[in-house]
Amino acid sequence: MTEHHIQRAFDRDLEAMQALIMRMGGLVEDEIREATRALIERDLELAAKVRADDKTVDALEHQVNEAAARIIALRAPAASDLRTVLTSMKIATALERCGDYAKNLAKRTSVLVEMPPIEGADKALGRMAREVELMLKDALDAYLRRDAELANQVREHDAEVDQMYNALFRQFLTYMMEDPRNISACMHLHFIAKNLERMGDLITNIAEQTIYLVTGEMPEEPRPKEDWVKVARAVASGAAQPDAGEAKGEGGA
Amino acid sequence: MTEHHIQRAFDRDLEAMQALIMRMGGLVEDEIREATRALIERDLELAAKVRADDKTVDALEHQVNEAAARIIALRAPAASDLRTVLTSMKIATALERCGDYAKNLAKRTSVLVEMPPIEGADKALGRMAREVELMLKDALDAYLRRDAELANQVREHDAEVDQMYNALFRQFLTYMMEDPRNISACMHLHFIAKNLERMGDLITNIAEQTIYLVTGEMPEEPRPKEDWVKVARAVASGAAQPDAGEAKGEGGA
Repeated sequence: MTEHHIQRAFDRDLEAMQALIMRMGGLVEDEIREATRALIERDLELAAKVRADDKTVDALEHQVNEAAARIIALRAPAASDLRTVLTSMKIATALERCGDYAKNLAKRTSVLVEMPPIEGADKALGRMAREVELMLKDALDAYLRRDAELANQVREHDAEVDQMYNALFRQFLTYMMEDPRNISACMHLHFIAKNLERMGDLITNIAEQTIYLVTGEMPEEPRPKEDWVKVARAVASGAAQPDAGEAKGEGGA
Repeated sequence: MTEHHIQRAFDRDLEAMQALIMRMGGLVEDEIREATRALIERDLELAAKVRADDKTVDALEHQVNEAAARIIALRAPAASDLRTVLTSMKIATALERCGDYAKNLAKRTSVLVEMPPIEGADKALGRMAREVELMLKDALDAYLRRDAELANQVREHDAEVDQMYNALFRQFLTYMMEDPRNISACMHLHFIAKNLERMGDLITNIAEQTIYLVTGEMPEEPRPKEDWVKVARAVASGAAQPDAGEAKGEGGA
């Protein structure tokens, strides 16, 4: 009876912690969508809202950490329960960083409004942001349902985001070379693309943590992805060179 | 007697975990130094060594996570001891990401060898890398000695790294505008500067975790840093615009 009672208390605490994480995830999804809309519509008010909302995400991460510490201290969870708690903490950390990138995207809007528009860039970034948002949605579902298969699909999805980034990198480089007046705007737009690509990496980390949660093993195989060094070399020297691979989730947690 | 014995077991386990973290930190210091030397001397063999060494850092982070889970499960640490264990896990995660950035720096060397050199860039990047390396050394010392004052100095030090980055951003933008043939190389060099700036942020996170460890409170005051949006606007439109503030440690952990 007591054993049963204790078990239920752990489950209740864990559910409360998961609810915090799902709330964080929902807010970060909103941040990505709204930051992108703010960029496309040059809406400084919406951009300001994203920056304000990110404070809530930060506060929630703090709450997740406190909840985790409390569960560990009060419930002394055994092996697999402890894994759930520690993994959930890591997921919260990844979400918080995703929110930071969305906030940064919103910040750049206020710089970009003062620069000449770059043809097609907003649309392409919008598509990329949409992919990242979908990845996040799936990663959160996979975590909540402990669905390793869906988590694996998220990992594979990231390759598409990487390809979108590589295409944009080439495009921005071309615009810069064509007209030096485009250089400043393209540098900022490129940062936005890079931030979206990094969000994809962080969301992949979340998916990998879920796989670890379900199977007890981190996925061994590196995700399929273009080797940017190879690609950069293949492209004619001096021409547009794709880029990727910043501090990838490779082996990271 | 038993209480005493249990306490000593916890301390022993904790020391073993800290030893793993210090080994990680030492390796990441080496990675930063060697990746920078590889870049400056265009030494592809040394760059390859950095990339191989990063695997050891990744493996050590995994060991830290396992050690933490084992301590929690076996020793059921109370409040402040638990804080030490969880905080140490976060420090290991930050170190692992630092190592990823150093590895990425090493990867870029193999692209840059095939591009025209940019005057003064290597020297400036070398100075920046040296600052980051010193920050890391201090952050590790602060963690090991539980020295909140030294940790605070690390935080302040980060403002200098940010300034170095902003100066380099301007410089690379100028080179790009002067001659489109510099654009590709400058983009890669700019990434290196950005990676070093991010390492500074991660090391600042490590310092903040140490402050939390010692005082029980995360530092409230945001670190003194240039508001890049403000600076970007102040600079004449179309001219070199500084940049910073990617997914800052603000509120992150």
